This record gives sequence, structure tokens and C-alpha cells, in this order.
Amino acid sequence: MRAEIEQQPEIVARMANRLRHFQEICETARRFQPRFVLYAARGTSDNAAVYGQYLTTIRAGLPAGLAAPSTTTLYGAPVDLSHCWTIGISQSGATSEIAEFVSLARRAGSLTLAITNDPDSRLAQSAQMVVDTEAGPELAIPATKTYTSQLAALAMLWSVWSADLESTHALGDAVPKAMAAALAAEGATADLARGHLLTDRLLVTGRGYNYATSLETALKLTETSYVSAMAYSVADLLHGPLAMVEPSMPTIVFAIPGPTYPGVLALLGELHRRRGPAIVIGPEGEALEMGATALRLPGGLPEHLSPLLAILPAQLIAYHLARARGIEPDRPRGLSKVSGGG
Amino acid sequence: MRAEIEQQPEIVARMANRLRHFQEICETARRFQPRFVLYAARGTSDNAAVYGQYLTTIRAGLPAGLAAPSTTTLYGAPVDLSHCWTIGISQSGATSEIAEFVSLARRAGSLTLAITNDPDSRLAQSAQMVVDTEAGPELAIPATKTYTSQLAALAMLWSVWSADLESTHALGDAVPKAMAAALAAEGATADLARGHLLTDRLLVTGRGYNYATSLETALKLTETSYVSAMAYSVADLLHGPLAMVEPSMPTIVFAIPGPTYPGVLALLGELHRRRGPAIVIGPEGEALEMGATALRLPGGLPEHLSPLLAILPAQLIAYHLARARGIEPDRPRGLSKVSGGG
Repeated sequence: MRAEIEQQPEIVARMANRLRHFQEICETARRFQPRFVLYAARGTSDNAAVYGQYLTTIRAGLPAGLAAPSTTTLYGAPVDLSHCWTIGISQSGATSEIAEFVSLARRAGSLTLAITNDPDSRLAQSAQMVVDTEAGPELAIPATKTYTSQLAALAMLWSVWSADLESTHALGDAVPKAMAAALAAEGATADLARGHLLTDRLLVTGRGYNYATSLETALKLTETSYVSAMAYSVADLLHGPLAMVEPSMPTIVFAIPGPTYPGVLALLGELHRRRGPAIVIGPEGEALEMGATALRLPGGLPEHLSPLLAILPAQLIAYHLARARGIEPDRPRGLSKVSGGG
Repeated sequence: MRAEIEQQPEIVARMANRLRHFQEICETARRFQPRFVLYAARGTSDNAAVYGQYLTTIRAGLPAGLAAPSTTTLYGAPVDLSHCWTIGISQSGATSEIAEFVSLARRAGSLTLAITNDPDSRLAQSAQMVVDTEAGPELAIPATKTYTSQLAALAMLWSVWSADLESTHALGDAVPKAMAAALAAEGATADLARGHLLTDRLLVTGRGYNYATSLETALKLTETSYVSAMAYSVADLLHGPLAMVEPSMPTIVFAIPGPTYPGVLALLGELHRRRGPAIVIGPEGEALEMGATALRLPGGLPEHLSPLLAILPAQLIAYHLARARGIEPDRPRGLSKVSGGG
């Protein structure tokens, strides 16, 4: 897991080199004229799909949602998908439910794209178009590098779709550099894992693009360290679960400048009033001063690319927290790779 | 909260009387010819929206998803919704983000429907069509009767859409009767709240239509009793978080006969292997024999109406768990009604 975390900047830089491939996908999709986009995924890949949903809606102006795969795979709903672009995401491509969903969507008239780390997988064979994430074999059960490779594929796709060459350039250069710098600041994450975060229960929150980061952080902590890490968008956290906050309940807060920042600051005020310790992760701004601890990210990236960076300290925290709790992070008890990383 | 839980069968029966109103809504919507449905909601209403997503896809054959409201309210995405039916759900109708999302969706070409307990609210004014849930004032902060009234509205809507008069009849008669019978079996839920479930951490799971029930159960336990109750679909639980299961971590399992039942049985086998105590809630079948404890629901309802029934023991558990922990369930610390129930 530790070695795979380290490979991420290079994998993202490689993805940014494949401009022509993404242009071809976008040309095919434009001819299809999708009215909306449905993502289908499970586990870590589902969290990448949440990032995809925000990119699709905000950057491409296309409504997007996450499919409930069982509606067709188990209930056999005869859905009309003739105006839909279905994007299935799976590290292994072997999660049979997702491959089957994409295959059924294609038969129902949908345009289909698979994003997977195995171009020979059942998922890849089910779809009309494939992005091979080319992250190399992922041996640890908790997915790390395949997650950021999926984020990079989605960021490339929707940057090319909206002719945003600035973002494709950033993915090839500024983003991998910032990622390498974030990984170099590992000591602070290990300290947190032996301090504030050595707990059975915690909350994770973010909003907008980094709602996906919150979900993935919680899943990583849950899988590797068996803690009850509950993720909420800032809006949903204020909508009820805030009642849980007390001095023994830490909250990891992703605070990335952008339209969601005022809401994040308001939440930090609420946590402070309830004396709930906040661990703030962000590049700059007053949020960093408002937490019990702050992890400072390298700055200067556009907000919509920040999830590629913001997840890295969380992966390191998950790794070090597992070790602090005496768990082997590569092999959570009773999980196998397809079920763990699909 | 206890009194409001009791009112639910009657509220559902009343909703079933409004056939003509739902027919008018469906006639308007058919003229619009929606290609897909987007739900917008927060908190408890968001869990009702998950039920709506399954009904829409399975019963009406329309693809459906949950909107990420901030994409338009904060990021101002210029989305084309000319083929979309947007359904905003909010108890109070005063959650400004949801009202604003529906208002922006309408301007972007969407057909809009509000489901709310206040027909004069901002949400109701934003939408072209309104279903007043007519549940009466909800005074307790944790939403109970407004949740089932929202489920009933959605069940009526999609039953009328698909000309399923059997379901509309059941909503007027068999469903409220079964709900009353489930509420009469309160003692077992109080026992659980003082026994197996008197814990800081637990899991909740279900699949298909009752994935929504799992989400709402977890939210209710979190709001009223400050426990870390984490909800996963059965498929997602097997995809990683299963590693958390151990003898001190109970799992509430909704086991409702239907296409998802074999997967629920497989999960119960996994819980058994890890010696994780399962609290099984369901009407019949071998799942009830496989748990440490079983709560038997009245049988005979079609699966797609079962969420109206299955949530009731969970509401009672939340109520009794709060009391067992010395918390006033009507007034979770630091929440107000709009933020708590919107």
C-alpha cells in the first residue's frame, strides 16, 4: 500500500499524455448527443464516480447521477437509456454487477464507457469505449493508486469535453508536482495517526468536488483500520449528524478555497462551539487556523483538480493509523482483491 | 417523537385517498415527456429520494438519480434540463438550497414537483406542481411521520404513473394495517435498545428498495442517540467495510423477500463467520433464523411498498435507544427543526 501510494504522481502525469485518446472518446460521444450521464461503480470506484458527477454537471453542463445497479441487474427494470451516456468504473473490471449493468445499459440504447485498470476485463468488453487507467498491478487490497488514476481519467475526459486545455496541462505538470510535494509531508500524517485520530469513531466532511474526497477518506479508514469513519457533505452534516460532535469525536475537514469555502468555515465554527476537534486539510486560508490541527496542502491548483491532491494525506493517515492499531494495512481481515478494490 | 410515530398509518391511508391529485400530476408529466428524473433533498428527505430513485427506475422504467444541489446553487453550472423531471423533497420546504435548486432547474427547462409538508413554503412556490404531505405539524426534531408521508407520496405517484391500482389500494388499506401491527410490537424494539444495540458503533444494511430504509435507520440512530451508525447497501458492505465486523459490532439487516434476498442471505453468512451479531428485520424466510435477534414484520405486502413498514421498528429503536442513553429524543443537542428535518 505504501509503495502504491508513492506511484500516484507518475500515473497521473502519464494519463495527461493521452490527449488524443480522450479527444476520440469525446468525438464519439458528441455524435451520440447524450442528454445525461449515469455512473455505475462500487466501493472506491463509486467515490471516483461522485467526483465524475460534479465534473460532468459543473464543467460540461450535463446532468449526471449515480446509478443504483440493482435496479436493472436484480429487478430487471426495462429502462429506456437512448439519451444516456453510461460510465462504468471498476479497478479490476471484474465486479460482475457493474459489468452486467453496463452491458444491459448498452442494450437499452446507452452509449457506454468503461474506466478500468484491466482492458481485458469483463467490464471493458461490455462497453463500446474503454479508458485503461494503466496504474499497474495494485497488490494491496485498499485501492489507492487506482482511485487517483480514475480521478485523472475523469478529469481528462471532462477537460477535453469542455476544451479546457489549461486543465489538461495542469494534469500533466502542476498536479503531479503538487502530489509529490504532498506525499513528502508524510510525518504530519503519521503524527495524527498516533495522536488525535487514534480513535474508534470520527467524522469526515467536505463539499462540492471534495465531497468525493470525504467519502473516500472514510472508506479508506474503515477498510484499513476498522474505525467508524462517517462521511457527510458539509450540508448534510449540518442537517442532523452534527448532534454527534463532542470533544471525543474528531472531524476531518477538507477546506479547499472555492464556492464551498464559506460553508466550510461556518461548519468549523459549529465544531468549535461543540468543542469537537477539527483536523483541517487544505492549501491556505483562515480554515487552517480554525482546527485543532492543520495539514497544509501545496497551493495553486484549480479547485476542480484538488481531489487528486487532497486524498493523499488521507491515504497516508489510513496507512499509519492501521499500523498504529497493529493492523497490516495491505490485507484487511477477510477481504479479497475483487471485493476490496473493484 | 413517540406520538408522531404513532400517527403514521393514518397519514399513509389519507395519502392513498388522493388518487385524482396524483392522476393530474401524471397527466401533466406525460405531456412533458421526461427522459429522466432528478431528486433533490437533504437529510431524511434525501433517504426518501433514494426510495424514489428505485421506484422511478424499476416501476416506471425512467432512469433516475440524486442531484448534487451545490453544482447549481454554489457552482452555477449552466445545465440543460429540458428533458428532466426534477422532484424536490423537504419536510419544511424551507431548506433554502433545495428550493433554490428546484427554482434553477425550472428555469433550465425542467418540469418540477415539490413534495413538502408546507404547501406555502418556498419550495412549494418554486415548483410547478406540489404534493402536500399533509402529515400535520412535526414537533420532534428527528423526522418520522414526514418521512413515511414522503414515501407514501412517492409510492402513490409511481403507482399511478404505471397504472398499478393494486398498489394504490394496498396503500389505502393493507399497508396502514401492517404499519399499525408493526407499531404494536414495540416491546421487542425497547429490549433491543437496552441490549444488543446499546453500543457506540453499529452497521445497518439492506438492498434494493430497502437501501433507503438502511440509510434512514442509520440517520435516525445518529441524530437521536449520537451512535456511529453506518449504512451500506449489502453490495457495498461486502466491498470493503465488512472488515469492520467483529463480535462487538452489531449489524441491523433488513431482509425483505424479493430479488435482493439471496444477497442478504449471503451477507448473513459472512456476518456469522465473523461472529458479528445480526439483528434481522423482515417478514418471513430463513433470514430471520440467521440473526442473533429477529424482529418479525407483518407479511403479505409487495416488496416495493415494504419500506413504509420496515422503517417503523427502526424509528422505535432510535426512540428507545435515546432514552436508554439518557437523551431526550425530541431535542437532539444543538439542532433546530429546519436543519434537523428539512
